[in-house]
Parts: sequence; structure tokens; C-alpha cells
Amino acid sequence: MNKVAVVGYGNTKFSNEDKSIESLLTSATKSLFDQTKNIEQDDIDVVLVSTNDNTKYLSAILSELTGISPKIAHTVENLCSSGTNSIVSAYSYIVSGLADIALVVGADRYDCPGQILEWDVSRGEFKHPVFWASVFTKAHKREFKTTQEDLAVVSAKNHTNAKFNPHAYSNKTYSIDDVLQSKFVTDDLHLLDCSKPCSGASAVLLASENMAKKFEQPIWIKGIGQKTTSASLTKNEDLTTMTSTKIAAKQAFDMAKIQVNDVDVTELHDAFTICEIMALEDIGFVKKGNGASYVRNLYDTQDNKINPRGGLIGSGHPLGATGVAQVVEITQQLQNKAEKRQIKNANVGLIHNMSAAATSSTVLLLQS
Amino acid sequence: MNKVAVVGYGNTKFSNEDKSIESLLTSATKSLFDQTKNIEQDDIDVVLVSTNDNTKYLSAILSELTGISPKIAHTVENLCSSGTNSIVSAYSYIVSGLADIALVVGADRYDCPGQILEWDVSRGEFKHPVFWASVFTKAHKREFKTTQEDLAVVSAKNHTNAKFNPHAYSNKTYSIDDVLQSKFVTDDLHLLDCSKPCSGASAVLLASENMAKKFEQPIWIKGIGQKTTSASLTKNEDLTTMTSTKIAAKQAFDMAKIQVNDVDVTELHDAFTICEIMALEDIGFVKKGNGASYVRNLYDTQDNKINPRGGLIGSGHPLGATGVAQVVEITQQLQNKAEKRQIKNANVGLIHNMSAAATSSTVLLLQS
Repeated sequence: MNKVAVVGYGNTKFSNEDKSIESLLTSATKSLFDQTKNIEQDDIDVVLVSTNDNTKYLSAILSELTGISPKIAHTVENLCSSGTNSIVSAYSYIVSGLADIALVVGADRYDCPGQILEWDVSRGEFKHPVFWASVFTKAHKREFKTTQEDLAVVSAKNHTNAKFNPHAYSNKTYSIDDVLQSKFVTDDLHLLDCSKPCSGASAVLLASENMAKKFEQPIWIKGIGQKTTSASLTKNEDLTTMTSTKIAAKQAFDMAKIQVNDVDVTELHDAFTICEIMALEDIGFVKKGNGASYVRNLYDTQDNKINPRGGLIGSGHPLGATGVAQVVEITQQLQNKAEKRQIKNANVGLIHNMSAAATSSTVLLLQS
Repeated sequence: MNKVAVVGYGNTKFSNEDKSIESLLTSATKSLFDQTKNIEQDDIDVVLVSTNDNTKYLSAILSELTGISPKIAHTVENLCSSGTNSIVSAYSYIVSGLADIALVVGADRYDCPGQILEWDVSRGEFKHPVFWASVFTKAHKREFKTTQEDLAVVSAKNHTNAKFNPHAYSNKTYSIDDVLQSKFVTDDLHLLDCSKPCSGASAVLLASENMAKKFEQPIWIKGIGQKTTSASLTKNEDLTTMTSTKIAAKQAFDMAKIQVNDVDVTELHDAFTICEIMALEDIGFVKKGNGASYVRNLYDTQDNKINPRGGLIGSGHPLGATGVAQVVEITQQLQNKAEKRQIKNANVGLIHNMSAAATSSTVLLLQS
């Protein structure tokens, strides 16, 4: 089977700026071209845009604006996991032999329409994702005595990690007390328990095994897991488990023939603090119920191996960009190019990206 | 390499009804399940939705509504060629080994936002596709003495073909004179030179070689060609050539090792009458300038091998459904199940689907 590597990347800064979607997409693409040697526009067979923006035909517009004439060009949307869905789609175009080199660019604006689930009637009146995060939080508190402080530690840790991420929305750090003092959004989630919608874009370049040879330090996609359990909350085995994440992680580990203990650095989809605790448990880093104490230990020992760029809470969450930005971070880590965020001797990285109460999840395993 | 077959299909009627996008998607999926033996929801690894609708997360919602829990689920958008882009994406998921069975459902409403190119600044004030069709028409008239009647023949022929399409928007036929008497939309395109926006959905089921064995009469995807030249009109070699179509056709014929003379039945993207004439020339069915006389001969001899279901002009054009509906028609033709529309001894079929002034084109070759 054709192997696929990440061979280039680019980022914009995540911000609250009122930039057009086209501007965000082209900026990340320019950043990728600036940082990647030996790539020409004519080499690119596929241009995929990952976004929740309502603008149509964006991959053709991006191609026009950046001088690319791809074979394959289209938009991929799957809410907050649009990014990793695009990357897996690009992977499959390459493995299938339809393409050799693929550009994936994810972008969204601060006001993107994927943030409020207006159209999902299964959620009743609870259209904002914070409500389902609150459902998870309540269940986890009941079952595992998880505390408000346990949640706050996730946010404090991820904001601390984001301090050294030049593309983060803000580099401001917050103490556990700061998180606990921030205003309540629901009865058990503070403002600082939530990731922040923002404008931003990230890009990656994927190449076939043969093409990857001409790029520096290719990072290989070794494992892919994806699952959609449902568009509602009803299909989780219980409310303390993100079933789609559990299934996707198993698929990815099986495909890569890698164990969870082999993972050196991880990007988790912490849309809300509870999600990081649950994802650590559901991927299998710790036993169910031990997620919070694991995070506390990371925070106390200043270990940034989980969400080194600050996660969604620390970096900001431009929906279509997030999964792509996660892959950029893990690639930089495995190339030993993450500067002040660098995890020593990182060889295997994991990416966890999800949508809508973890009703869809992607888990990717990358290796240098 | 893993081979991929079309093993099932479903359609809604195309209409001007005010149905929700979710209703359209589920109706076509139900039609597919009703007509396809030996398929269970649990067999489906991929659910792709092809649409220009602004509703997010539709593949997960469709999965929920139809009892499917796929691995891979997302929306694909590339304007009027979203349908074939989704099918090629599903093909690559199967060939890559990530999936065995994929469901692709295309749908749009009569008021879908992909019909007016609001966001494409390269088109200036000419935001409705009819304006670029008019540009093509003027150029073709200048170069090849194409007449208003030549165009009208395309519409009369395709409306005649649609007479036997139970899913067509209307089964009403029109004479050449009827077309010429219909009101002018631009200075050289009548209303009946244009395809009609409408509500509709189509679905196909794709399977790997191994899985295809359990289905009746699998139809194989033998050739795939895709090209995006630009989001503007500037990259065509001249205004009488749809360069992306020409390139995509060559790719598809090369991949399939099939010649244009081997093609028995064809679906062409006749968004406007001029497009059918140009596509016949650019795919290579006839020499440049001979498209109109070729169509006239088909009409005079009542040969329906080009656009047997009536094309976009005869059937209606629900953007995200169109490419999928084209594949359904060719599959039925190659299975000898097209009833009154049946082309005798059809063994090889071609699908041509495009977006935005043929700035993106897909050509597929199917074989029984």
C-alpha cells in the first residue's frame, strides 16, 4: 500500500480579526509555501478546503488565488472535525493512486455558522455545544467525583502550554483560581472551561511515499480511526464515555500496530475542559475515572505532552482549521521543530479531533 | 488495485416542492435501500453527502435518521459537480482500504445557495451562470456559425428524452419552435436553453471488488478524470473550449484504457444548451465545430444515447444531486434496467459533470 507523509505546513495566527475566508485560506497556504522547500504549484494534484463557512466553491477559488490547477478540488465539512476528515480524504486520494501530492487547508471565521447547532433537531432547545458539555460534566461528576477544580486544571494547563504557541489566540496564562473565578456559562462550566471561537487557518501538504523523498523530514500517517455513532447523544454507551472516540482510537492503534504507551505527544480535542479528561480515558491513556488526576500531575510537573500548542482552549478554535492545526503541531513535534513547546525525543504522535458531542471522532497516529 | 463497483441506487422525483434537505436525503436513501438486496445499515463504512445546502453535519444527521453508524461521514461541496466529487472521494476511500462499502447521497433544494455565484469576485457583476453560458454561446456562434436553432435542438431533444424519466421535473416535451419562442434570458439564451433549479436527491452505493460479489449486476468504475483549471474564465485555451473537460476526459480514457468510440451511452452536463454541444466536442465524440450537427442527427433519428434521462435541461438540476443522478442513469443503462430509456447493448457509459463555467470538470467511465 502507498504510504502517505505530511511534508509541509502553514498557519495563520488565530485571532478575533474580521478577515474574509478567502484571506484566511490564502494566508495559511502562503505560509506553507514559504516554509516548504521543493514544492511548486504544478506539483499539487488535490486542493481540499476544510471549513464550515457558507461560501461555495472555495477550493477552486483558493486554487485560482494561489496559482494551482489541481485535478481534484472540493470542500469537506463535518463541523469541528472537518480538518481531520479532509486530511483522511486527501490520504485516501493518494493511497488510491488518484493523486501524489495534496494540499489541505482548513479555515473558519470567528462568526462561522457551525458553532450553534441550529439545524440539529435531536438537541431540542440545547443548540449550543456548551449544553452537551454540561451534560457530560454532570455525568462525570456523579460517577467519578470529578470536581470543578479538576476541570479548571485542564484550562490552566492548556493556557500555560499556549504561552509558547506563536499562533495562539492569546498567550495569556490563567491560574486555577482564575478559571474558577471566570463567569459561569452553564451551572457547571465557566467561561474559561470553554474553547474560544476565532478566525484562523492551517494548512498541510501530504505526499505519496515516492514524492515524500524530495521533502525534508517527512512524517508518516500510520494509523487512522474514524467513527460517527450518531448525530444525537443517544448512542454513547453511557454519558461518561465518548463512544466514537473509543472506537476511532482502537481502529487507529490496530492499523498502526502501535500501543497507547508508545505515544509521545498528543493533541486532544478539548472543546471544553471535560472533553480532555474524557478523551484521555476513552483513548486509553488512563483508566476510566483517572483522567482528572492524570491532568493534575501533568500540570504540577509542567509536562506539556498533552496539547503542547495549548489545545483548543489555549489556542482558540476556528472550527475547520482545528484538525489541520493539530496535525501541524504533531508534525512539528516529530520533526523536533516545536521550539519552546518541544517534547524531547518525540517519535509517535496522536491527534484526536471530534464533532458535536463526540458523535463523530477521528484519531490519527503519526510517526517520524 | 482494489476495484470499485456501483451496486445500488435510489432517486427522488425532481420537483419544485418545498422539502427540507434532510427529507430529500432520507427519501433517496430509502429508495436505495428499497431497491437494493443484501444491504444492511451496519455494512456501510462511509456516508458522504453531496450538497450546496448551508446546513452543517448533514452526513451525520442522515446517518442518524437512517440507522447507519459509519466510520467516515462528511459533506462534499464543489458547486454543480459536488455529486461526482463525492463519488470519486468514496471510490478513493474504498481503493485505499479504509472502507468496503460507501453510500453517497446528493441533494439540493430549489432555492439552494450555489445557483448564484455571489462570492466569486472574478465574475464581476455576472453572478448568474447564464451569463457565462452566454459568453460561450457568442464565441461558438462567431467561430462555428452555430445558430439559435442549433441550441434549441439540444433542448428539444433532451426534453423528449426526459419523457420517459419518471424522476424528471416534468415529462412535457417541447418542439424546436417552442424553445425558440420561449422568452430570452440573455440576448442569446432562451429560458428553455437553461436547466431548471429544483429540489431533488439521488443516492448510489459503492462497493469494493470483494463486497460487490454479493450484489446483483455490479457496474465498475473504470476511468476517472478530474480537473480544476481556475475559478474564473481566464484559463480556458479559448472561449469555445472547456479545457477542464478536455483534460478530465483524457485522464478518464487513459485510466480506463477505453476509446471514445467504445462509449455506448453518455450523461453530459447540459446546464445550458451550449454546454452539450461544447462537451461533445471537448470530450472527443466529434471534431470541434461538429457538435451541433451531431445533436441534430440524434434528434432527427430519435437516438437518445446522449442524455437518455433528459440531461439537466430535461430532468431538472438540483445541484448536489446532479452528478449522482447521472451515475444512477448510466448504472441502470449498463444493467439493462432503463426501461423505455434503454440503449440497446450498452456496455460502456460516460458521465460528464462540471461546475462554474467548466472551470471544474469530472469525467467518469463505467462498464458492466
